[in-house]
Amino acid sequence: MPRIPAQDLEALFTHVLVTRGCPAETAAISARIMTESSCDGVYSHGVNRFPRIIECIDRGIIKPSATPVRVEGKGGFEQWDGRQGLGNVNAKLAMDRAVELARTHGLGCVAMRNTNHWLRGGTYGWQAADAGAIGICWTNTMPNMPAWGARDRRIGNNPFVIALPRNGGHLVIDCAMAQFSYGQMENAERQGRQLPVPGGYDQSGNITTDPAEIAKTWRVLPIGFWKGSGLSILLDLVGASLSGGLSTYRIGQQGTDEYSEYNLSQMFIAIDADGLVGRMMLTRTVEEVISDLKASVRVDDDQEIFYPGEKEQLTRAENQRLGIPVDDTVWDRIRSL
Amino acid sequence: MPRIPAQDLEALFTHVLVTRGCPAETAAISARIMTESSCDGVYSHGVNRFPRIIECIDRGIIKPSATPVRVEGKGGFEQWDGRQGLGNVNAKLAMDRAVELARTHGLGCVAMRNTNHWLRGGTYGWQAADAGAIGICWTNTMPNMPAWGARDRRIGNNPFVIALPRNGGHLVIDCAMAQFSYGQMENAERQGRQLPVPGGYDQSGNITTDPAEIAKTWRVLPIGFWKGSGLSILLDLVGASLSGGLSTYRIGQQGTDEYSEYNLSQMFIAIDADGLVGRMMLTRTVEEVISDLKASVRVDDDQEIFYPGEKEQLTRAENQRLGIPVDDTVWDRIRSL
Repeated sequence: MPRIPAQDLEALFTHVLVTRGCPAETAAISARIMTESSCDGVYSHGVNRFPRIIECIDRGIIKPSATPVRVEGKGGFEQWDGRQGLGNVNAKLAMDRAVELARTHGLGCVAMRNTNHWLRGGTYGWQAADAGAIGICWTNTMPNMPAWGARDRRIGNNPFVIALPRNGGHLVIDCAMAQFSYGQMENAERQGRQLPVPGGYDQSGNITTDPAEIAKTWRVLPIGFWKGSGLSILLDLVGASLSGGLSTYRIGQQGTDEYSEYNLSQMFIAIDADGLVGRMMLTRTVEEVISDLKASVRVDDDQEIFYPGEKEQLTRAENQRLGIPVDDTVWDRIRSL
Repeated sequence: MPRIPAQDLEALFTHVLVTRGCPAETAAISARIMTESSCDGVYSHGVNRFPRIIECIDRGIIKPSATPVRVEGKGGFEQWDGRQGLGNVNAKLAMDRAVELARTHGLGCVAMRNTNHWLRGGTYGWQAADAGAIGICWTNTMPNMPAWGARDRRIGNNPFVIALPRNGGHLVIDCAMAQFSYGQMENAERQGRQLPVPGGYDQSGNITTDPAEIAKTWRVLPIGFWKGSGLSILLDLVGASLSGGLSTYRIGQQGTDEYSEYNLSQMFIAIDADGLVGRMMLTRTVEEVISDLKASVRVDDDQEIFYPGEKEQLTRAENQRLGIPVDDTVWDRIRSL
């Protein structure tokens, strides 16, 4: 698998986006975000997803020259319309604005409707933390998971992110409400692997780690069973209501194929941690907790306990040094775009 | 099991609290909250917990006449010191204040330190929703769960709540980051029942539904395995940093028995949904999603799909009509206090 230097990947992403009518500045932002996600090891929402983004532009689902507009607001809250622009550029703008609102109001919130897949949700957490803010954000998705007690998929996996700034490397948790993504299950099935923990139900109604069995029912497991189901429903409804946008249900009404996931509703909350309690308080509280976590008795002696976001930082350092590993097929496909 | 009318339970709670030096008004608020939680079927954090609350007062861990003070604030954010007052009264005050801040600033946040167990977290979600606000709140706890990859308990189960106002009955999700509470596992073990889904690890390192096996390792499962572990760490650190209070690690330094869980850090966020987007928008978005959920293909034909908070409302109606079922032993104990 070739390793591509980050700047080469970013330049190619930018170039291809510009050929699709994307303004140079917008293309540069989108390309940087996708490169950074790839650099952090989240290839599924970086380089591997790039061809699909271009396809969505070609099909008119993503409108690369659209810019979001502020609809209304009050104090620290603003409602925005993403106008079907590039999802990652829209989301970056929304978190930038939430941080700006937080500087004035202590905390800020942007609810954005009619936007597109934000790719890696963690991006906007890292972004808030870089600005010295606590970031909390989530998105809804197309219906891709059954509610608790149901067989058919009517709720979203609705990724949820919390980020906390730290001098030695931020803490970021970025997790969907499904135990595994479709991509992870398909990869495991293709490679004949079992999932590391149960990911869904088989046809007899038993939970299983076998991705091939789950593929027969698509009864994927929410995190925490009924808990993740409930969280998914609330995250969806809060985002859709406050943004005045579509719920997962309404997104599902647009169609059922992979190109129907557009006009999403997203929430971005920033709390100005540095401005409110200062970096010294954050440092004191965070460092001793990390030390305590690291002192845990390990299940596997060789397996260190990581804080959320730590593995991404280790991968980032390696990929910055060696280049980003890109699958041959993906790399050929991107160069042909 | 006797069924006690809600007003009798509330009157008795109030009376006992007053005998312990609790001011009448504070006692009334605390008693009402515990009665409402019992009425909603959350007995573990209502009537069943009352004797322990009195014990904590008697031991000086809860200071029933303490009132929280505002430490500092900026815009929609305020930091409060709970001064070890009654946890549920403190939390109600904090969410009231967050809602008040939200009326002015669109959204509001109170971070409270040095407070006590808030009993049922959902209470403060229902409260925000009653006021027409979206409520998001969480608390940290003593260390009661291993981090992902660890054997020993260094992170909290940190209950997390999201609530959304609705004319026909609010939507409230109230879930700890552990799959099951210690109380649930102990009940199942006493009754010789298996847990409905895996709740932890046995001594061979396999996940199990057997509460007796989990009791041997206390490796309880976070919701979503590594996901709930990461969420727990972030919820703890955000609350402890912003409140200037104790982290789960620091709470653990106070001791390891059940009376060591005090000086908690809690977060209360309110978004003025009614004021920002109006009840009509909420209604339109929420009702069609609930209808869609209800139309799911059921796993068990006889088992309706509930939205989060619906079961509590059904239990509430029944207990209001028939009285609150109270275990004989618990009832005798409360009357002897």
